[in-house]
Amino acid sequence: MSTVAAYAAPAPKAPLERTTIERRAVGAHDVLIDIKFAGICHSDIHQVNEGWGQGIFPMVPGHEIAGVVVEVGSEVTRHAVGDRVGVGCMVDSCRECDNCLRGFEQYCTGGNTMTYNGVDRRGDVTYGGYSKQIVVDENYVVRIPEGLPLDVAAPLLCAGITVYSPLKHWGVGPGKKVAVVGLGGLGHMGVKIAAALGAEVTVLSQSLRKKDDGLKLGARHYRATSDPATFTELAGTFDVILSTVSAPLDFGAYLGLLRSDGAIVNVGAPEEPISLNLFGLLGGRKTLAGSMIGGIAETQEMLDFCAEHGLGSEIELIGADEINTAYQRVLASDVRYRFVIDTATI
Amino acid sequence: MSTVAAYAAPAPKAPLERTTIERRAVGAHDVLIDIKFAGICHSDIHQVNEGWGQGIFPMVPGHEIAGVVVEVGSEVTRHAVGDRVGVGCMVDSCRECDNCLRGFEQYCTGGNTMTYNGVDRRGDVTYGGYSKQIVVDENYVVRIPEGLPLDVAAPLLCAGITVYSPLKHWGVGPGKKVAVVGLGGLGHMGVKIAAALGAEVTVLSQSLRKKDDGLKLGARHYRATSDPATFTELAGTFDVILSTVSAPLDFGAYLGLLRSDGAIVNVGAPEEPISLNLFGLLGGRKTLAGSMIGGIAETQEMLDFCAEHGLGSEIELIGADEINTAYQRVLASDVRYRFVIDTATI
Repeated sequence: MSTVAAYAAPAPKAPLERTTIERRAVGAHDVLIDIKFAGICHSDIHQVNEGWGQGIFPMVPGHEIAGVVVEVGSEVTRHAVGDRVGVGCMVDSCRECDNCLRGFEQYCTGGNTMTYNGVDRRGDVTYGGYSKQIVVDENYVVRIPEGLPLDVAAPLLCAGITVYSPLKHWGVGPGKKVAVVGLGGLGHMGVKIAAALGAEVTVLSQSLRKKDDGLKLGARHYRATSDPATFTELAGTFDVILSTVSAPLDFGAYLGLLRSDGAIVNVGAPEEPISLNLFGLLGGRKTLAGSMIGGIAETQEMLDFCAEHGLGSEIELIGADEINTAYQRVLASDVRYRFVIDTATI
Repeated sequence: MSTVAAYAAPAPKAPLERTTIERRAVGAHDVLIDIKFAGICHSDIHQVNEGWGQGIFPMVPGHEIAGVVVEVGSEVTRHAVGDRVGVGCMVDSCRECDNCLRGFEQYCTGGNTMTYNGVDRRGDVTYGGYSKQIVVDENYVVRIPEGLPLDVAAPLLCAGITVYSPLKHWGVGPGKKVAVVGLGGLGHMGVKIAAALGAEVTVLSQSLRKKDDGLKLGARHYRATSDPATFTELAGTFDVILSTVSAPLDFGAYLGLLRSDGAIVNVGAPEEPISLNLFGLLGGRKTLAGSMIGGIAETQEMLDFCAEHGLGSEIELIGADEINTAYQRVLASDVRYRFVIDTATI
């Protein structure tokens, strides 16, 4: 056991404040990581505010973790002291179900252990990346390739894999036309990765406010969804529409933008049910789908891909004392495109 | 031009009555077919009743047509006099769009010509299979293999291809678990074809009323959706759920029956929008999809598959004077499983 500094919400909806937490002793299969940077994901705010259900408090958020290994357990083979590593949304899973066995630990039917706001297989509450150190089983730790700075790599552990996994699964690549709905933390990585995969990318955003950014990030086109002409002129265009927003879209209109056999893939989702006329799916054999982060091996593949293509997140680096302000700015969509905490300031 | 006997609805919602219609002269690429049998599809009733929008009257329904070629145009190469042939939901398409070029004429973006209640490229209203003869371009006519009786083959031209196409597209075969929702005209062919493809088939029906039939048709299991235990005991079971019903399902509950990467494929659809919580798609990368009939080449493939496996529709053969009664019985779900008109009685 060791005591480490962290930032925690002491109660639901409460501002985060500096505290200390206990990390378990480094077990045979564990690595101890000096956390260098932790991204702020919108879901951190949802969980602090109990928007998705009851939380465990005090809560130390953070599942976009980049750091350096400082100690390894006696049986560890995958990582060594000094390695640059990352931890994403999961720190364990059952390792026995069909999904775990085929590398889809994110869909573990035995129930995976979330990096924070969870209870692990020992019965201990998990605490996330807004802290100085973390102890994680080596199988849930990925390598951050040389050439990928740790600060811009941190958000890849959630935002990056969340968009990479469905883009790969739905066959995005050369010759494909992809729309990314929403240009936020997820969306801006969707544009970068889809473009690097060779697709022709269009951003669909409420307004043209971030158009210059979108084109710089790799989009070929940028259209406002507030303009009805977008839906008539782009009818039947896209192979894949990646929706990164939590606003309830007019799915009938978006289905009209798909080619036959096209898919709308949701990685964001509104809390309320959406309304959908199924006839919009029948004509053209279209699909409405969802996807949630990615498996451990695929997360490694994503990091390798990003390193090869020089892709990191666009970030605004902040000190720990700015976390509460950053939360307000995320809620106001006032971030381009990810806040990252320099954990040296905790 | 020739005058042929037919059964037509003279006006919306009106009973069908005997009449005569004109068929065009046999063109260079046309075949003239003596219609022997015509299936009654639920959509015939929708169109007569203008449930899907304005119709063209008098309306001669029927897009499940089986007959024999009696004359061919000078340029016809695919069919000969005496051939046993079928015509389904389409009699023409643009032949130039991406979908037509890849054999998906059912999704023709230029607009295909429906077998009845449509206007063809000459500007003529189309009349369907409740008639003695029909003239169709040879490219939209398929061969009915020897060994497949024409009466049980007729419903395959719509009901058969409507379920065959998505079952093939979503990879149904040995090792896959498939649920068929609804055991009607479409559903009973879904069970037969999915079982013949090698899948383990479960029927999900409101009650167990047709359980004996379902098991005889090839289902391994038959569960009532009125029983809440169905949704707990079968959670996470199916690779594909084929919904053949037009009732609005509780899609949240049905998504829970899917394995990761599973799909609910709708070939029926309620007229009203459905309500859906998208989180049910995210966990497990699930899809909600739709499919509409199939292409011409795929329809031929389906007929060949059915002949090879000895699959025809379960039918109740009726005379033309029973059409109106049959419509009432279809609306009351009182048919096992398809009415087929013996056109000799027209």
